[in-house]
Amino acid sequence: MNPNTFRHLTYGVYIITTWDGEHPTGCTANSAMQITSEPATIAISINHNNYTNSLIDATGRFAISILSEVSDSALIGRFGFKSGKDTDKFADIDYKVVDGMPVLTGICGYIVCKVVNKMETATHTVFLGEVTDAEISDGGDAMTYAYYHKVIRGQSPPNAPTYIPPTVLADEKSPSNAIYICKVCNYERESEPEADYKCPICGVGKEKFEPKQ
Amino acid sequence: MNPNTFRHLTYGVYIITTWDGEHPTGCTANSAMQITSEPATIAISINHNNYTNSLIDATGRFAISILSEVSDSALIGRFGFKSGKDTDKFADIDYKVVDGMPVLTGICGYIVCKVVNKMETATHTVFLGEVTDAEISDGGDAMTYAYYHKVIRGQSPPNAPTYIPPTVLADEKSPSNAIYICKVCNYERESEPEADYKCPICGVGKEKFEPKQ
Repeated sequence: MNPNTFRHLTYGVYIITTWDGEHPTGCTANSAMQITSEPATIAISINHNNYTNSLIDATGRFAISILSEVSDSALIGRFGFKSGKDTDKFADIDYKVVDGMPVLTGICGYIVCKVVNKMETATHTVFLGEVTDAEISDGGDAMTYAYYHKVIRGQSPPNAPTYIPPTVLADEKSPSNAIYICKVCNYERESEPEADYKCPICGVGKEKFEPKQ
Repeated sequence: MNPNTFRHLTYGVYIITTWDGEHPTGCTANSAMQITSEPATIAISINHNNYTNSLIDATGRFAISILSEVSDSALIGRFGFKSGKDTDKFADIDYKVVDGMPVLTGICGYIVCKVVNKMETATHTVFLGEVTDAEISDGGDAMTYAYYHKVIRGQSPPNAPTYIPPTVLADEKSPSNAIYICKVCNYERESEPEADYKCPICGVGKEKFEPKQ
């Protein structure tokens, strides 16, 4: 079995949001798909370890902000590589409340859902949400996971269904001393970061980068 | 609520296959996503009305053939707009049997699964499959649903989760008398078909095309 085959499944890049009491929070996800058209339902997959999982269970609601190719890619790291338990992910971020749910701006559309069913697996919950609101924004083409991977050169965090350990990834890349890799999110760049550099994915500074082995 | 928002969710194009007794059969799907990485599991969504649904239930197994941009687009119509109850979908088609399951050729990869869980919805079953085999083929980049829609100009059949009635689609297109539409699969072309023309999606002849209103 070659786990790199799973890379050929096509995904988008989404920020799944909900409420932690009075505060909005959420996480990055690439797994969302429409299941039925009448009534419209969407399935998402969230790791048990993600704080967002227990909050969706508690509130019975979630919103999907659909990132576009022109969305700020730093959102992916902010929502994907840190936990909402420790960080206010919405600090200094533009968002609006639609149908009672927090939704980002600078996206190509949003879908608001109430949970109507769920399926548990070894590590993830598949939540089935019935759509209560959905609108298109002026945000360009939807960002595909392939775009995130090839153009932004982003990686999946360990909680993602699509996570592939670095040892497997290394098999398909030729080694290079010129490549620097972010120790937090595995983002790669082709030269040593400058002193004031911030990782475009997770936001950490130059000190978290090291030459790729 | 704007149902066109759902178009911004990103999908691939897959042929989901299984067995009808001694014969291979299957259907086109755009909904497949990895749920867990260890063990590797994949969720697919299949309409209750699809013959493939009851056969996956009966056999407890399915395979996903991942179409690429260079795959024969006629496969999409053959597997998507006809029923395996009435048609031998595999007649004259190259395929191989991998890990006991039928898999197409000319694709970018395949994933073979055994069903380990399922979730019922109003019209579709979400099958969770544990991966028993997966390999990459030399088939080019994965076909995205956006590519199918924009480049091949294909549509979803009524059984698909992403089906949008023609009246909704019409709202986002300007009318043109020069466009001919296939009455079987809604494929559009910009001029009247020639006498020996076959629809590249579902394979029907010129007589099934009519000017778009």
